[in-house]
Amino acid sequence: MRLILVLAFALSLPAASEEAAIKKVLDDQTKAWNRGDIDEFVRAYEQSPTITFVGKNVSRGYDGVLTRYRTNYPDKVHMGSLYFEDVEVKMLGKEYALVIGKFVLDRTQAGGGPASGRWTLIGRKTKEGWKFIHDHTSN
Amino acid sequence: MRLILVLAFALSLPAASEEAAIKKVLDDQTKAWNRGDIDEFVRAYEQSPTITFVGKNVSRGYDGVLTRYRTNYPDKVHMGSLYFEDVEVKMLGKEYALVIGKFVLDRTQAGGGPASGRWTLIGRKTKEGWKFIHDHTSN
Repeated sequence: MRLILVLAFALSLPAASEEAAIKKVLDDQTKAWNRGDIDEFVRAYEQSPTITFVGKNVSRGYDGVLTRYRTNYPDKVHMGSLYFEDVEVKMLGKEYALVIGKFVLDRTQAGGGPASGRWTLIGRKTKEGWKFIHDHTSN
Repeated sequence: MRLILVLAFALSLPAASEEAAIKKVLDDQTKAWNRGDIDEFVRAYEQSPTITFVGKNVSRGYDGVLTRYRTNYPDKVHMGSLYFEDVEVKMLGKEYALVIGKFVLDRTQAGGGPASGRWTLIGRKTKEGWKFIHDHTSN
């Protein structure tokens, strides 16, 4: 019985540490956002021309995603204060992960008012750590 | 040169055939929908308690997803006529795939009027073929 528990724990360790690593990326993203550093926020995405961001329209590639964020959130007033909640990570093999969660944006009326919604992210484990290759965000 | 082309073709075959298999699942889904067979439509999802559907809220498990569809589309008038477009498949390793696309629902005002939006699906290659384990759909 104890052996089974030890084995179960050992087998769950890799997934748990990947989950912690992914949640750290998300935490770092909100910290960057709340400093007004949108370029650092976007560095959580993979620097690749094939990444996709599905909102009302589809933005493509790292530059497309960066442009989308810079256009929609041109300054600190429009960025407001961001946090994520209800984050869930599911490994898709060893190299990819499905991550779902909710965003909440506290923002003045001048900045566009408060906003919230849900997102689905696909993470890929790269040499530079976990990077997002797809984002679907909806209000 | 010819060898390189032959090799490139051979290497691209698995991904191309997986893509075709996934698109066939989507085609079968729209056919089932347009016959009014919502149970058959939902069989494209994996019969698992851990699958997730992100809309305004999160539905969980095969039964939760089925209930969501049955509630939102109680009869043929509310189901209308469905098609998918702009479908793109990206393999995530050999066992998983990221699929994005657009849905268009032609529907009478009595059924709720026309609707359209975008979805992100995560497919898993199971013994029973490709099954969806996650869906994020937004208008």
